[in-house]
Amino acid sequence: MSAAYVAGVGMTRFAKAPDSTLKTLARAAVQDALDDAGLTVSEIEAAYCSNATAGLITGQEMIRGQVELRPLGFSGIPIVNVENACASGSTAIHLAWQAIAGGMHDCVLVLGVEKLTHEDKSRTFSAIGTAIDVEARAEIEARLGGNGGDSRSFFMDLYAANARRYMDEANATREDFARVAVKNHGNGTRNPRAQYGGDLTASDVLDSREVVWPLTLLMCCPISDGAAAAVLVSERHKARRAPFVRIEASILGSAVRAPERPYSAARNAAATAYEKASLGPGDLDLIELHDGTAAAELMLYEVLGLVPDGEGARLLAEGATELGGRIPVNPSGGLLSKGHPIGATGIAQIAELTWQLRAEAGERQVEDARIGLAQNGGGWLEGDSAATSVHILARS
Amino acid sequence: MSAAYVAGVGMTRFAKAPDSTLKTLARAAVQDALDDAGLTVSEIEAAYCSNATAGLITGQEMIRGQVELRPLGFSGIPIVNVENACASGSTAIHLAWQAIAGGMHDCVLVLGVEKLTHEDKSRTFSAIGTAIDVEARAEIEARLGGNGGDSRSFFMDLYAANARRYMDEANATREDFARVAVKNHGNGTRNPRAQYGGDLTASDVLDSREVVWPLTLLMCCPISDGAAAAVLVSERHKARRAPFVRIEASILGSAVRAPERPYSAARNAAATAYEKASLGPGDLDLIELHDGTAAAELMLYEVLGLVPDGEGARLLAEGATELGGRIPVNPSGGLLSKGHPIGATGIAQIAELTWQLRAEAGERQVEDARIGLAQNGGGWLEGDSAATSVHILARS
Repeated sequence: MSAAYVAGVGMTRFAKAPDSTLKTLARAAVQDALDDAGLTVSEIEAAYCSNATAGLITGQEMIRGQVELRPLGFSGIPIVNVENACASGSTAIHLAWQAIAGGMHDCVLVLGVEKLTHEDKSRTFSAIGTAIDVEARAEIEARLGGNGGDSRSFFMDLYAANARRYMDEANATREDFARVAVKNHGNGTRNPRAQYGGDLTASDVLDSREVVWPLTLLMCCPISDGAAAAVLVSERHKARRAPFVRIEASILGSAVRAPERPYSAARNAAATAYEKASLGPGDLDLIELHDGTAAAELMLYEVLGLVPDGEGARLLAEGATELGGRIPVNPSGGLLSKGHPIGATGIAQIAELTWQLRAEAGERQVEDARIGLAQNGGGWLEGDSAATSVHILARS
Repeated sequence: MSAAYVAGVGMTRFAKAPDSTLKTLARAAVQDALDDAGLTVSEIEAAYCSNATAGLITGQEMIRGQVELRPLGFSGIPIVNVENACASGSTAIHLAWQAIAGGMHDCVLVLGVEKLTHEDKSRTFSAIGTAIDVEARAEIEARLGGNGGDSRSFFMDLYAANARRYMDEANATREDFARVAVKNHGNGTRNPRAQYGGDLTASDVLDSREVVWPLTLLMCCPISDGAAAAVLVSERHKARRAPFVRIEASILGSAVRAPERPYSAARNAAATAYEKASLGPGDLDLIELHDGTAAAELMLYEVLGLVPDGEGARLLAEGATELGGRIPVNPSGGLLSKGHPIGATGIAQIAELTWQLRAEAGERQVEDARIGLAQNGGGWLEGDSAATSVHILARS
């Protein structure tokens, strides 16, 4: 397989952006990524476009990428439209990596864009609720013991159930979860593209509106609009911009059958990624992970092998995952603070790693960052994430 | 790049199947393909799943492939959900080919499934109508001069406008279109998996209900439910079943900007496919092409280089594209007779080529078929197909 590099990245600010459209968001992110790579539209040989909900929210289904890219002047190139719930973006990155690493193309675009806000909020929640087996919805809701109401509550019921289980098994507390939110919002304050941010205290987080016990509003990722893009290239194109960011591993997985614990797919993907990249968690300088909730971040410390099971909260409490710590996690602010426009999130994680590895992350720069990992998860199927991916990138 | 082979294929009968679900259709096609390949679920390393409308018709979005494959026992493998309007199936084949040819995997599954029928027909038509830039719908409809009604009419208005233009430019007649329908329905009669079939006369076709002049009902592909699947493998797995069907070219394209004529993307894809496979139209033994309407088939004869522009009707009249002719086209019955469950169509074309190249096509067998081409198109963007693909397969 050939080496694959991230030549350029771009993203809009994530926000509730009622006046934006899929097209305006896409244009901004793609233009950013092309400018960053020093490449033009005519040099792009193929595009992998990720979006999860436009069909249900804006009514644009089937050829979303073509419609978003056309105003930028793209003509004739292969365009693939990809969905994998909240892991749609990293799935698109994975396909682009396959095209470069497999020698099919030398220069490809990845675009993720999502317009989640809608004047009718129920439309947004109902779209998000399709990231499960919809035929099993009633049964799942009954099992979770949620309020049986809208789809928003379904995923929050699910996350809350995972959080309660983690509290039991790992002796984690709501204060631990609050500390994650404080950290990530603090990071987000240093990220001009983050939706939220602020110097919160644990009390601010604990006192915010309860979503589903033990989760409060500030422990849950927001509803966001936004786009992110990346240009991936082969060795042939790589000389255009130094320092180079190389993809050391690109792993995609799906829900494991009868998993013994949540995040089994992510655990497997991480193990495979470490193996492919010939390194381990101790070699990482930073991580962007899928903190759909604050509790998830702690669990993912363990899933990614930073600490043994049950010690996630300890790692946080030691300050290891803060900026300046041993292994900063979500320096971008993560989903909690940066926002979570579903199809863009996995690509935004790659953008953050790229900026960090090129030492261009400004106030949130991780010192001497040479190796970074991104973990992105999406959907829910019988006890595991329906889709999950792990990417490892290195400065080279 | 490594060689990629089609190790097995399967499909349901295409039909209006109100009692079927995405899951039951998928299970039948996948089990067929696995049995045909002599492989089991545990040997599949990744899956590429195509569907165009489930989010809008059945409410299942985002993780369609995971939901469809789970009951069959798949666990943990990479699953990618792909959309590209009516070319979704061939796009999934293209991604699977990339994974094998690029050396990422040795054995992958492609699944396309579509459930178009719904008790509320307007839901089906409205879903089909998302294969354009939905923001431009009103403008396109006005330009086409259609009835401005439902989405079904939109695409039929479009196809009819193309057909009228072709009648002017190529001196083609409605009788020519009728002959295409007669041929394909005749072929479909020999295909147990075809939705329709029958020994029609040109008068039967001309006398059927007018959809939009010059197109009658029997000149237009039907609304269908169905699934198709294929297993693609590398050299390592190929020995399991002879004769071998090798993928000589897998080309995907999108709408060309400001095209001089319809099907520019398909024209380019065909030229590239011939170049990659080091052969020309004269080397082909059979073709499966995207006869969304009977008129489209004649235009595609020219687009694929079988004859110069304007001579499609002559080729048909000579009998060259009939079974037993020089270059049989749509021996399966094509979309017109076999049916068109959107996400399954491109994979069903590959299934037909595979059966033909292995001399397993029964009553519709093309004698000594060694090289076949499949052309699949989807959606509409500013005068061209939004997505298009050409595959060339050879017995080896």
